[in-house]
Amino acid sequence: MSKPLCIAVDWGSSNLRVYLIDQDGIVLAEQLSEQGMLALSQADFEPVLSTLIQPWLHHQVPVLMAGMVGSRSGWQEVPYLDCPLGLEALATQLFKLDTRLPVAAYIVPGVKGIGAAGQVDVMRGEETQLLGLWTSKPENDGAIAFCLPGTHCKWGQLDEGRLESFSTMMTGELFALLCQHSSLAKGQTESLSQFDQEWFDAGVSLVQEQGGLMHQLFTARSRTVTGELPSSGLASYLSGILIGADVLANLELCRNRHLYLIGSDTVSARYQRVLSRFAVDVSQVTAKQASVQGFVALAKAAQTKGIPL
Amino acid sequence: MSKPLCIAVDWGSSNLRVYLIDQDGIVLAEQLSEQGMLALSQADFEPVLSTLIQPWLHHQVPVLMAGMVGSRSGWQEVPYLDCPLGLEALATQLFKLDTRLPVAAYIVPGVKGIGAAGQVDVMRGEETQLLGLWTSKPENDGAIAFCLPGTHCKWGQLDEGRLESFSTMMTGELFALLCQHSSLAKGQTESLSQFDQEWFDAGVSLVQEQGGLMHQLFTARSRTVTGELPSSGLASYLSGILIGADVLANLELCRNRHLYLIGSDTVSARYQRVLSRFAVDVSQVTAKQASVQGFVALAKAAQTKGIPL
Repeated sequence: MSKPLCIAVDWGSSNLRVYLIDQDGIVLAEQLSEQGMLALSQADFEPVLSTLIQPWLHHQVPVLMAGMVGSRSGWQEVPYLDCPLGLEALATQLFKLDTRLPVAAYIVPGVKGIGAAGQVDVMRGEETQLLGLWTSKPENDGAIAFCLPGTHCKWGQLDEGRLESFSTMMTGELFALLCQHSSLAKGQTESLSQFDQEWFDAGVSLVQEQGGLMHQLFTARSRTVTGELPSSGLASYLSGILIGADVLANLELCRNRHLYLIGSDTVSARYQRVLSRFAVDVSQVTAKQASVQGFVALAKAAQTKGIPL
Repeated sequence: MSKPLCIAVDWGSSNLRVYLIDQDGIVLAEQLSEQGMLALSQADFEPVLSTLIQPWLHHQVPVLMAGMVGSRSGWQEVPYLDCPLGLEALATQLFKLDTRLPVAAYIVPGVKGIGAAGQVDVMRGEETQLLGLWTSKPENDGAIAFCLPGTHCKWGQLDEGRLESFSTMMTGELFALLCQHSSLAKGQTESLSQFDQEWFDAGVSLVQEQGGLMHQLFTARSRTVTGELPSSGLASYLSGILIGADVLANLELCRNRHLYLIGSDTVSARYQRVLSRFAVDVSQVTAKQASVQGFVALAKAAQTKGIPL
């Protein structure tokens, strides 16, 4: 076993992922838990984490945490850093937590910027993945675009390791809301496995038409009522409309920039399908891979800068 | 009491409204019930209606019904008429129901057309309101635009009593979904009475910016997280974004056409506020008024054409 570098903690609203990683970004051990922020109260955070990482504490390596753990409803609210932001600044701005753990524990700050609509936008967790992408991607081409699909999909641009801007789209959440609660598709499981390629593509085609998103979504109901759209194609059709609208709103970002897609294989494949239709050149990175590489970069940079990890 | 003309039944998914009306469109008596389509099974329709209209049956006037009562999950599925459609055709296409009522009972057919996105669109109930608007509006200007705000907002154009085209937007439903279930505003009552004018206007302004609707909606979360947007303004802000997007997508319809807004006072006032910002000239009609006038026109036209009412 190679020498561990740090314990990395990706703590979101719904999930908690802990990794023991070495300096090459190899995951030596990992544990997943459903004890996300929303399932916990203030008093739970330290004991929950302590129990999960107990077997690794004898390595005497620091704990680095990213995600909603740093939000107001998380363990400790950590102020956002301002975008535009050189991502290397994350390492010098780690927030040291006061804990009873026998190793140092830090939270990575999130980032606040101005989104496409001219209003404030925020991220927590994605900044670490972007740092990981930047430090590990093969070619050092200057300006790139990124897309992190998910519940709250983030799009933006990085220029030589500098996060220039980003915007959040509520694509994944809207899909779940429509599948679970709407008159369009109530009771449809939001299963990503039941993929009907033809109806997904029909949804993507539709967003290039007139009428706006709220009209386009309603066609799922009218086409169902008139018997055109079978219930087996309904979720894929809605997914095509939403991912199509998401991509279309961000196409301009990808002009003259290579796009990196950071997400799960299933969702990334859907984005890739839409992006190829618009002739966008894409590289895929898994979210875990980007996240782990980000923690490696943070731990190394902090060491170099003499931060007591 | 003037001589009754018909018993008008507006039977939607959530509500059932019955009116006894005379030939001038005066409502002589009315009853409201929450026994909408969704609350009833097939065996319930006739007894529920029969009980409600019992006191009026001695007038020996026909029953005319419009709305979801004619849908697949309603009392009796009545085929859609095709748009473009001369609305006077509704009177000759009334569907006669087989009932044990001592008077004749008819269902008004819905209308099927091609919406703005080039796909099938449907209405049931609104066709009767549009007929009412057409036959009772003061000036007989040729081509007009209409907007019927609500759960599923309808926009379209009428030319000399001919329904040329229409499109449905899921504006009201999306607002309710976001207020009841989303991470943006979960637990917010969707109260229309708590109107924060400034935040509503801020939402309307936002949809004229970049990023697309799914990004614009997310600003409700980022602006809340950063403390800009108070929870007292949240629902109004979302309402402004959605109604703003709805109006913006349909502005072209109102070019060179007078717009009639048919809805409840509360919702119409919000649309009116947005429309005035875009300098659209609007007349308001209440949904009940349009509906009642439509039933009057149907009953009279059917009599004239010798249909045994």
